[in-house]
Amino acid sequence: MSSQPSALADTAGVAGQASYLARLSARISAVGNALCVGVDPDPAALPAGFTPDVHGVERFAALILDVAGARAAAVKFNVAFYEAFGSAGMAALERLRARVPKDVPFIADAKRADIGSTAARQAVAIFDALGADAVTLNPYLGRDALEPFLARRDRFGYVLCRTSNAGAAEFQGLDVDGQPLYLAVARRVAGWAEDGAPVGLVVGATAPAELAMVRAAAPALPFLVPGLGAQGGDADAVLRNGPATTGSAGTVRGGALLVNVSRGIAAAALGPTDPGDALAAAVDHWATVLRC
Amino acid sequence: MSSQPSALADTAGVAGQASYLARLSARISAVGNALCVGVDPDPAALPAGFTPDVHGVERFAALILDVAGARAAAVKFNVAFYEAFGSAGMAALERLRARVPKDVPFIADAKRADIGSTAARQAVAIFDALGADAVTLNPYLGRDALEPFLARRDRFGYVLCRTSNAGAAEFQGLDVDGQPLYLAVARRVAGWAEDGAPVGLVVGATAPAELAMVRAAAPALPFLVPGLGAQGGDADAVLRNGPATTGSAGTVRGGALLVNVSRGIAAAALGPTDPGDALAAAVDHWATVLRC
Repeated sequence: MSSQPSALADTAGVAGQASYLARLSARISAVGNALCVGVDPDPAALPAGFTPDVHGVERFAALILDVAGARAAAVKFNVAFYEAFGSAGMAALERLRARVPKDVPFIADAKRADIGSTAARQAVAIFDALGADAVTLNPYLGRDALEPFLARRDRFGYVLCRTSNAGAAEFQGLDVDGQPLYLAVARRVAGWAEDGAPVGLVVGATAPAELAMVRAAAPALPFLVPGLGAQGGDADAVLRNGPATTGSAGTVRGGALLVNVSRGIAAAALGPTDPGDALAAAVDHWATVLRC
Repeated sequence: MSSQPSALADTAGVAGQASYLARLSARISAVGNALCVGVDPDPAALPAGFTPDVHGVERFAALILDVAGARAAAVKFNVAFYEAFGSAGMAALERLRARVPKDVPFIADAKRADIGSTAARQAVAIFDALGADAVTLNPYLGRDALEPFLARRDRFGYVLCRTSNAGAAEFQGLDVDGQPLYLAVARRVAGWAEDGAPVGLVVGATAPAELAMVRAAAPALPFLVPGLGAQGGDADAVLRNGPATTGSAGTVRGGALLVNVSRGIAAAALGPTDPGDALAAAVDHWATVLRC
């Protein structure tokens, strides 16, 4: 990976589309923040006037999306919140995807990985059927289980490294030759990126010490950091150690960092204020916290 | 978990439905084999007369399913082969699921795991929207990321342990306190089962030495073993070390083992014979190999 800023303008993929990192860079520069808004409505936590079914979820998601699309650096849809309604939910997600502004990176949070022939179909599902710019990936099966994703040089994969859940350390914290497993994952993924694979890492905001160690082990990788807001992560630590410091990502404004807030924004719409106004205020708040 | 055979008849879940293991046991006893047929049609490898689109995939899947439903112990659908067609593919999968005979366990190969609130929606997607009896799960995020699946005591989760892909050892083989990571996973999952969680393991047929070690580490866990057929796994080694030897699973005919064959069966339909006849012969062949 080149350390020249011009590398960001390289075209990639058969369509000759600019790389994900170049598109993300343009968007971060345009909005001046590292906020990624998670659009994951729980049918049990919708504002008044929204029915607790796929229609209410789609309507609320569209409201969050419209507010985020005007202000945030990126949007992330966790596909499980749509898959939970079966094919009708996937159809809703497809309509929402078509509503995302062209210049706003669309991340499918799907945590995929599978053996070769199946991973190829997963990549078609996420990158072609759904049209995602980036996807979250699970490293447990090894690089070859992610290869159909990594081969798409105009897209991007954020590989789970140190996740934000309370029990993340059960396996990720196991000692591998004197270092925790998540650091072994970080170093391997950094090597894939050096070989040209378009990859970054998912590192939770709820574990600031681990975040600092992952950044030290992988200074050039773009990070997607969930866990602020409802999960109680540490914004200062994220802004300190989240940005890439070297490589192409290091030349992107804010070090190509994306910090995801989902429930911390959606919950704002549950109060007495107009849901759209409340969401706009919440997005503006987090955009300010995550100014870059 | 009791070692009494009668434990299999215990009811579980709010619906009072028999446990997955009891239902699997009844089916294995009825057919006398450990064959799980994978119903994962690749649109690029359909027989003549099937269009390479979602309609052709659904028609071919229905053909495989009808043949398997009359002969095999279980069926496994890898959801990616349907997700690749977006909401139309998921609608096809829903129609196929409704076509599975009531007494044939339906396994959703989805390799899911996510943080709490999202894993809950994943479990709704797999167990409720799709109606799966069992699901494959990825351990990397830790047990709490699987809890909404494990809490469904009338369903079942097969946790990835040692997968069948060529690069599986990249992380799964890392040394953790003198043992490979996949054995650490096996021991942890065995502990979850001892605490009452309805879980087993996915262990590939392509790594027979590793399979033997996993069985030694987790003698009571039901195994789902992919990798026979197209992937070239070792059937003798699977039949030797695949069956559970203790606990409730050890009392099930064949030790509750399920051995998946997907492409090794689907490919039979590509020859000059009538596809239905060719599939029936291929399923009969593998059912004989996997007699129990």
